[in-house]
Amino acid sequence: MNENITIKKADGTLEFFDSSKLITSLQKSGATKELSNEVMKQIEKELQDGMKTSYIYYRAFKILREKSEPVASRYSLKRALSEMGPSGFPFELLISEILKEKGYKTETDLIMNGRCVEHEIDVLAKNEKEFIVCEAKFHNTVGVKSDLKVALYVDARCKDLAKGNFDGKKPENLIPKYWLVTNTKFTKNAIIYGRCNGMTMIGWGYPNEGNLQDLIEESNLLPITVLTNLTNQEKRVLFEQGIVLCKSILENGGLLKKIGVKDARIERIINEAKSVLKVKRG
Amino acid sequence: MNENITIKKADGTLEFFDSSKLITSLQKSGATKELSNEVMKQIEKELQDGMKTSYIYYRAFKILREKSEPVASRYSLKRALSEMGPSGFPFELLISEILKEKGYKTETDLIMNGRCVEHEIDVLAKNEKEFIVCEAKFHNTVGVKSDLKVALYVDARCKDLAKGNFDGKKPENLIPKYWLVTNTKFTKNAIIYGRCNGMTMIGWGYPNEGNLQDLIEESNLLPITVLTNLTNQEKRVLFEQGIVLCKSILENGGLLKKIGVKDARIERIINEAKSVLKVKRG
Repeated sequence: MNENITIKKADGTLEFFDSSKLITSLQKSGATKELSNEVMKQIEKELQDGMKTSYIYYRAFKILREKSEPVASRYSLKRALSEMGPSGFPFELLISEILKEKGYKTETDLIMNGRCVEHEIDVLAKNEKEFIVCEAKFHNTVGVKSDLKVALYVDARCKDLAKGNFDGKKPENLIPKYWLVTNTKFTKNAIIYGRCNGMTMIGWGYPNEGNLQDLIEESNLLPITVLTNLTNQEKRVLFEQGIVLCKSILENGGLLKKIGVKDARIERIINEAKSVLKVKRG
Repeated sequence: MNENITIKKADGTLEFFDSSKLITSLQKSGATKELSNEVMKQIEKELQDGMKTSYIYYRAFKILREKSEPVASRYSLKRALSEMGPSGFPFELLISEILKEKGYKTETDLIMNGRCVEHEIDVLAKNEKEFIVCEAKFHNTVGVKSDLKVALYVDARCKDLAKGNFDGKKPENLIPKYWLVTNTKFTKNAIIYGRCNGMTMIGWGYPNEGNLQDLIEESNLLPITVLTNLTNQEKRVLFEQGIVLCKSILENGGLLKKIGVKDARIERIINEAKSVLKVKRG
């Protein structure tokens, strides 16, 4: 019945509506088969030719939220990541926390000298076996891809840093590794170029395993932007204090009160954070 | 009297108004000392704390235009270049024409294979002694600088092309040269990095000699956006047909009629183009 419905993607291109894609993304967020089918049936009733994927997403999120708030929060992860702006710094902190959770010592927002100039480094991570220079490329629009130019400038920067010997920060026995992490997709050429030059490329849905969703969900480090009970203003204030994780809200009881959230809402926010962090991937 | 007047630059930073800068830019556009001083006196009467440089520019242009239209057109070159958008293609064509005038054979808007991926090349120029790969970086906002990331990605692209042997387009006896040309300024780090990697950097006011203004004025290849008698719509239509130079309007008599300009205005436009192209630099 919906086989011929055309929908409009965030980058403006058109494609046929594919119900299996929606089902997959719902299940990835922790929805059971039953719940996914329920949401799907409702969406199919509302579908219209030319509808934007962002609107379909919004409706699915609303329907899901009525049925299971924590699953809805997970479902909104892509959008939640794009709301970590406007600056790229909260996204850098998120990547740094993920790497810490994996056992690395990290530094963020560094300035290091290359052979020719000094460079801003988003995240530097090391353990006994690895030395990782990581660019965290943040876009606040979901449809924007990290393109070839990004892969090119990150590569040139890494090579300039290597020629400058990483300001002596790299242990002599380790070979440097370069990571490019983005909250959106990569263009095909960006992926080809990055891999051709030995870079680890991690983005939305790329690679199949070990992509950004996987890293976030394995570490259970969800950003505060998934919480539907926090206002945008409250999220901004928390970012300014370097708080980017749902986990931090649970670990620091007084935090929400300190930024002026009323008691009644604090309980709801904490409950949402707790249930979001408990949900396992379906 | 105006020593303590603070003005706001296009990038939002503040600086003290410096009358000698305005005088210099007026004289560079072909204004005599007398004319420059006349404009300056009028501007000084109107100056107010916090005034935007773009407004001062606009007023100077208006005053100048009443006194000498061709000098005003030259004075507006920076603005005129920024109006060559929205795509970067007209600016590429301008750079290509300048290189042709210097005796190179040029190609624009090429796709060439590097070692890893294919790249878009804005302008390729060669003669018997030189083989130039040129990136024409266009910004449609005057205050935006071409920054380190631009220099980095151009450098990485050039190196990937070199490893791919330039699709066999480079004569074996020539060493490739890399140019990065922009219609705005460069950041300091972009200049240091570019030069450190052997790139020729040409931008607004950079370097002191052989900068973009110099190239345009030496070759007398002014873009049609300097013409105050053409509407924006007409400029766009001309761009779509690959017409970017005032010279082309004079060389192709029927051009303006063909795009629907009325006879009375055609004469005015042609007269403006003629007088713009005759003015020599002061």
